[in-house]
Amino acid sequence: MIGPGPDTMRAQRIALIGAGGVGRALLALLRRKAPELEARYGLAWRLTGVAGRRRGWLAGPAGLDVDAVLRGEPGGGTAAGDVRAWLAAARPDVVFEAIPSDALSGEPALGYLRAALEHGAHAITANKGALVHGYPVLRELARAHGRAFLHEAAFMGGAPVFALFRRALPAARLVRFRGILNATTTLILETMEGGGTFAEGVARAQGLGVAETDPSADVDGWDAALKVATLATVVMDRPLALREVTRTGIRDLAPAAVRAARAGGHVVRLVSRLEPGPGGLQASVRPERLEPGDPLAGVRGASLLAHFELDTLPGLLIGVHEGGPHTTAYDMLCDFVTAVGGGDAGPA
Amino acid sequence: MIGPGPDTMRAQRIALIGAGGVGRALLALLRRKAPELEARYGLAWRLTGVAGRRRGWLAGPAGLDVDAVLRGEPGGGTAAGDVRAWLAAARPDVVFEAIPSDALSGEPALGYLRAALEHGAHAITANKGALVHGYPVLRELARAHGRAFLHEAAFMGGAPVFALFRRALPAARLVRFRGILNATTTLILETMEGGGTFAEGVARAQGLGVAETDPSADVDGWDAALKVATLATVVMDRPLALREVTRTGIRDLAPAAVRAARAGGHVVRLVSRLEPGPGGLQASVRPERLEPGDPLAGVRGASLLAHFELDTLPGLLIGVHEGGPHTTAYDMLCDFVTAVGGGDAGPA
Repeated sequence: MIGPGPDTMRAQRIALIGAGGVGRALLALLRRKAPELEARYGLAWRLTGVAGRRRGWLAGPAGLDVDAVLRGEPGGGTAAGDVRAWLAAARPDVVFEAIPSDALSGEPALGYLRAALEHGAHAITANKGALVHGYPVLRELARAHGRAFLHEAAFMGGAPVFALFRRALPAARLVRFRGILNATTTLILETMEGGGTFAEGVARAQGLGVAETDPSADVDGWDAALKVATLATVVMDRPLALREVTRTGIRDLAPAAVRAARAGGHVVRLVSRLEPGPGGLQASVRPERLEPGDPLAGVRGASLLAHFELDTLPGLLIGVHEGGPHTTAYDMLCDFVTAVGGGDAGPA
Repeated sequence: MIGPGPDTMRAQRIALIGAGGVGRALLALLRRKAPELEARYGLAWRLTGVAGRRRGWLAGPAGLDVDAVLRGEPGGGTAAGDVRAWLAAARPDVVFEAIPSDALSGEPALGYLRAALEHGAHAITANKGALVHGYPVLRELARAHGRAFLHEAAFMGGAPVFALFRRALPAARLVRFRGILNATTTLILETMEGGGTFAEGVARAQGLGVAETDPSADVDGWDAALKVATLATVVMDRPLALREVTRTGIRDLAPAAVRAARAGGHVVRLVSRLEPGPGGLQASVRPERLEPGDPLAGVRGASLLAHFELDTLPGLLIGVHEGGPHTTAYDMLCDFVTAVGGGDAGPA
């Protein structure tokens, strides 16, 4: 769409579930980019709801005080009892959901996203768990209500992979995928290569803000498995349950074996794969010994790297630095522009 | 646009300038993808004109014989005297231009693209020279006629960088760029690292089909300079003349210096840069000594790698294998889908 369309002439009412690091980074980015959104896409917005564990469900259809919310204060509005009452009061056009992800159920994010779409809002999430567990349902709800369900931040934050496939790679099929999708494990393996222990590697990843207090989701491959399932589900249109991903973590790797591989010019990394197999698509996450010339072997520190083989292209490589809240926030901003119709500055 | 729009219900008349490797790969791909283009985008096409050095300007509004054209035969139609007579006879909706690029003038491609847009067709090119020398004019012509001027193949064939910025990275500004955009020079430098000579490196690149018979455009940095100028012109909206790119090739590099760097754990590569400087944007192409941890240092053989720093993202890395005609053809197919309105499968 070129220029403002009928849907973008008035301020979009936006509401935010999750006012932690990501949610606040998103608000700050939306505010910083407001002049550009208006000039380039004819897009304005007003915050009419914020929900968080401490603040509860606050709605203010006339507009909440963004500065106050950014300072961690309520920002005005009145409290609703639950998500549906909150939606009815805030009447959002777009709901952003950015609460911690539960890998095994996707809840409570999944329920909130359903409610948002049923209310008639566009739903934008950063939640891998909700995506893997609820994609078909959420997509159908979005279609039925003529709204967008977007989730760019759920895979390789900072690299707009879903938008790339949807909007920049028409008439192409993803045939095979290989990537390093988890940074905590790379940091641990690098520490082992240098003679350190597993625990020292975990501490390093935590020090960089990459690993959680409990690093199990990373170390045991759950995080990478969720991501690879997300990719198959969205880009290959092949909904993949978490249990369909063959998963081996790095907890049982002997540091001596990692050092020995390094001494032989190789590196061990946690590699995620999607590939055609005899019984259909095969998905795996496991430590692999990589050859020196392999682009994945060059991945350092908190970087992620993905290699896509398409039916039309032999290889497309996309890399990012493991993103913090600001990267996730930018992905959600991209989804916002796409959802409300200004996602393309036109074929100029 | 979701599903077929009014503009895509009838067959698009397409015409092709340049029936060499790229042109024929494009026709073959369009034919192979015809069922998918119709099913996903409501898009059909008919070839109504082909022009080439040997065949001249052939037009057949009822449709030329694609199989014959792919075999190198005329494929029917009648001969026109020049590009304008040909356009008048073929009445194309879309003109694809894929003739060899002249770095210093962009001609004759530039003139053909002007004629196509003035005729009222969408114009799609693989031509870096035409893009660098004619971008503002061609873009204005396209706007004035309500048509698209698209050129995805002109930068990093196989990586849809322009579409990525236009459609998948809204509200982001490219701040800084660094990349390896030329494969011939990498192959020569690798050969030197292994103890070979410059001439052996050129022969290796030619053997892989990457270098031309006269490798000067690669070796002296013209090819990379054109690409970096293209990027600034299109993505930064800062039209950059070729003379504004500081350019040093690899012809005068001593193989001993390249080997010495390698012995010290470094590699020398031809690096292209765009960065803010005291006098505005600075563009350069020159051999640089890269640190071992630098992602660009990991580039091997005929691969290309680009690092984009945005105001919203610290780093996005995109890599491809230096493409042959099939890669260029796919980029032009992407442009085709974008031009005629099916470029987005919808926000699902």
